[in-house]
Amino acid sequence: MARLVMKFGGTSVADIDRIRNVAHHVRREVEAGHEVAVVVSAMSGKTNELVGWCRAAAPLHDAREYDAVVASGEQVTSGLLAITLEGIGINARSWQGWQLPILTSNAHGSARILDINGAELIKRFKERKEVAVISGFQGVHKDTGRITTLGRGGSDTSAVAIAAAIQADRCDIYTDVDGVYTTDPRVVPRARRMDRIAFEEMLEFASLGAKVLQVRSVELGMLHKVKIFVRSSFDKPEDIDPHGTPPGTLICDEEDIVEQQTVTGIAFSKDEAQISVRHVPDKPGVAAAIFGPLAEASINVDMIVQNVSADGATTDLTFTVPSADFQRSVDVLNKSKAAIGFDHIDGSIDVAKVSVIGIGMRSHAGVAADAFKALAGRGVNIRAITTSEIKFSVLIDAAYTELAVRTLHSLYGLDK
Amino acid sequence: MARLVMKFGGTSVADIDRIRNVAHHVRREVEAGHEVAVVVSAMSGKTNELVGWCRAAAPLHDAREYDAVVASGEQVTSGLLAITLEGIGINARSWQGWQLPILTSNAHGSARILDINGAELIKRFKERKEVAVISGFQGVHKDTGRITTLGRGGSDTSAVAIAAAIQADRCDIYTDVDGVYTTDPRVVPRARRMDRIAFEEMLEFASLGAKVLQVRSVELGMLHKVKIFVRSSFDKPEDIDPHGTPPGTLICDEEDIVEQQTVTGIAFSKDEAQISVRHVPDKPGVAAAIFGPLAEASINVDMIVQNVSADGATTDLTFTVPSADFQRSVDVLNKSKAAIGFDHIDGSIDVAKVSVIGIGMRSHAGVAADAFKALAGRGVNIRAITTSEIKFSVLIDAAYTELAVRTLHSLYGLDK
Repeated sequence: MARLVMKFGGTSVADIDRIRNVAHHVRREVEAGHEVAVVVSAMSGKTNELVGWCRAAAPLHDAREYDAVVASGEQVTSGLLAITLEGIGINARSWQGWQLPILTSNAHGSARILDINGAELIKRFKERKEVAVISGFQGVHKDTGRITTLGRGGSDTSAVAIAAAIQADRCDIYTDVDGVYTTDPRVVPRARRMDRIAFEEMLEFASLGAKVLQVRSVELGMLHKVKIFVRSSFDKPEDIDPHGTPPGTLICDEEDIVEQQTVTGIAFSKDEAQISVRHVPDKPGVAAAIFGPLAEASINVDMIVQNVSADGATTDLTFTVPSADFQRSVDVLNKSKAAIGFDHIDGSIDVAKVSVIGIGMRSHAGVAADAFKALAGRGVNIRAITTSEIKFSVLIDAAYTELAVRTLHSLYGLDK
Repeated sequence: MARLVMKFGGTSVADIDRIRNVAHHVRREVEAGHEVAVVVSAMSGKTNELVGWCRAAAPLHDAREYDAVVASGEQVTSGLLAITLEGIGINARSWQGWQLPILTSNAHGSARILDINGAELIKRFKERKEVAVISGFQGVHKDTGRITTLGRGGSDTSAVAIAAAIQADRCDIYTDVDGVYTTDPRVVPRARRMDRIAFEEMLEFASLGAKVLQVRSVELGMLHKVKIFVRSSFDKPEDIDPHGTPPGTLICDEEDIVEQQTVTGIAFSKDEAQISVRHVPDKPGVAAAIFGPLAEASINVDMIVQNVSADGATTDLTFTVPSADFQRSVDVLNKSKAAIGFDHIDGSIDVAKVSVIGIGMRSHAGVAADAFKALAGRGVNIRAITTSEIKFSVLIDAAYTELAVRTLHSLYGLDK
């Protein structure tokens, strides 16, 4: 007997037929003797419809009202799944964020979960063999009692937070892919599904655009040591042995991974723009003068490269931003030109970031050097480099992205 | 300065353009200095869509889950209207049934409102000049904290209950007709809109199929002395003088009606079936033996006619049921044939009930006699008659409905 959280996204509950398929997945686990809490998203398309109405109603809308409107999508799905489960003989009830309650911060539209009391759910597992069907993505503000939402992809975070609250043995994320791959299989057909990946590595994957899981859900899993299992919702429920090992990727603690590879995978992002600020004075406070205004404008700065000044007087500073924010970033900096004291700005939106990820890098020297050599051998010019303990990233011309990813994927022995 | 409840049904909030129109109605009242609570239904079609999904999920579904699903429709509208109001500079916030809270009984799907605390809304009228936008149709069970709904048309009831809770001066029901008519204008083009009608009369109209208002909302208005004003939501907001007397019908106490007519209007229903139980023993308990089983089968019996026995041994008993329940009623009775002891059953679904309504009848003799004479003059055969203090009804062949309604409408001087 195990205690499980099962999370299903929008495409898995897009219509009544798919909700029925979800119910059969749940029944399989219940019949195997497990205690189950299910977390559901809105039917696919519904959230966009609701958001569209809010925008049409007023361009600048109160986030508290926006939350009340969009949270209704998950409410519908949780009720429908509870009905479907009862229809096939499984005891179930739906829970809205305010009913459990899932207490959150006041940051409407992107609230953070503060507390979930799992005691009532556990009591009902024991006393009534009742499946809890919980609306993802939503909560309630602890003081005002108003509906909050966690932001896009928040249902993953709901699922992991609930798993922590009820001390679940595992949090199964059913999604439209059957796991986490060493890189995007559309770019590298020989990409492999990983059986296991450490939380730290997954964080790098998630934040680098491998859109399998919300970053916050992985952080939360790492913090509370919740094992997260990414698996396919398209597998036929009746084909799965509840006592066997289904295909998927387990995101877990580093120590639960027996055979640690040096490099786990290659991530990349084409949604990058490079900005170089030329001839800034090489003195304390200049980085703050540059990144302060950008932060105020809510622009997300990623790679930052500042080299040691050659002349001791001025230096160049390069960083990346999402390509959609390129022009706005340049405008923000030009407004602060006098305060920063730079000579000019140049940049490009035709760049891509390719990252090599692996906890094993910590103990292996020369991993990055191999990459630079291999990329040079293919004629790929490296614009900038950043490194951290478990990954390094290179900024290159966007046109070379696929070539670079394939080259590195082979280099580190990740091809199947 | 007055305190108003404004209620808008599904067609009035069917899309963002209509919600904007509603917002302008609200602004007109706010700018006239009034304190306003708005009650909204789901966008038209939404409730049917949600109900359809529940039915598709499982034919026999838990009413508590059904309520969670269908209540989401009103949640969306209240949030969108609050956004729209704020977009045009009106302070507003949405309220779900569980937030106010609107406490109800446990009868999911057709719950009754038990209590609404209006103090918080009144405080916000005073302190923040804030418009309350309240989801109609829904509440929360006082003990379990689960979402309840009031049944079809429940938003009217929500509106009147809220008006009572905040001691509103008036409850405006915006609808797709501009008031209550002396009879259906599609049948009698010369039907007039009434300026005022007493609660007791409106109850007869509402329950007789003039589908302007939910019966329960009128009962509640009568109980709490809430003036209900039925008016059109299609009038252009800017054409209405908030200090003038807009077109519509005020439902009020009898004593507020200065010039009381003998007959106020003619109601009719074609959705009737007649059942006659022949030669039942004329002894105590026989009515209970007939109507007990029908009540258990949830069949709504309307007119009941039992004549004094001619031979002192047996009698005939006639009653009406909704035509959709005709066959089921006959089946129920035949099952109890031995217990009741009747000879046989006959009946017809081709019948209609025509009712003449007016508080003034109490003090005027001969009102019914005039009708019988006029109908006889037109060759309309009366199958059965029932009377109450303020109305009488005749059961006739359905084919004569329009003729009978027009005849009576002229007879009592109701033509314009």
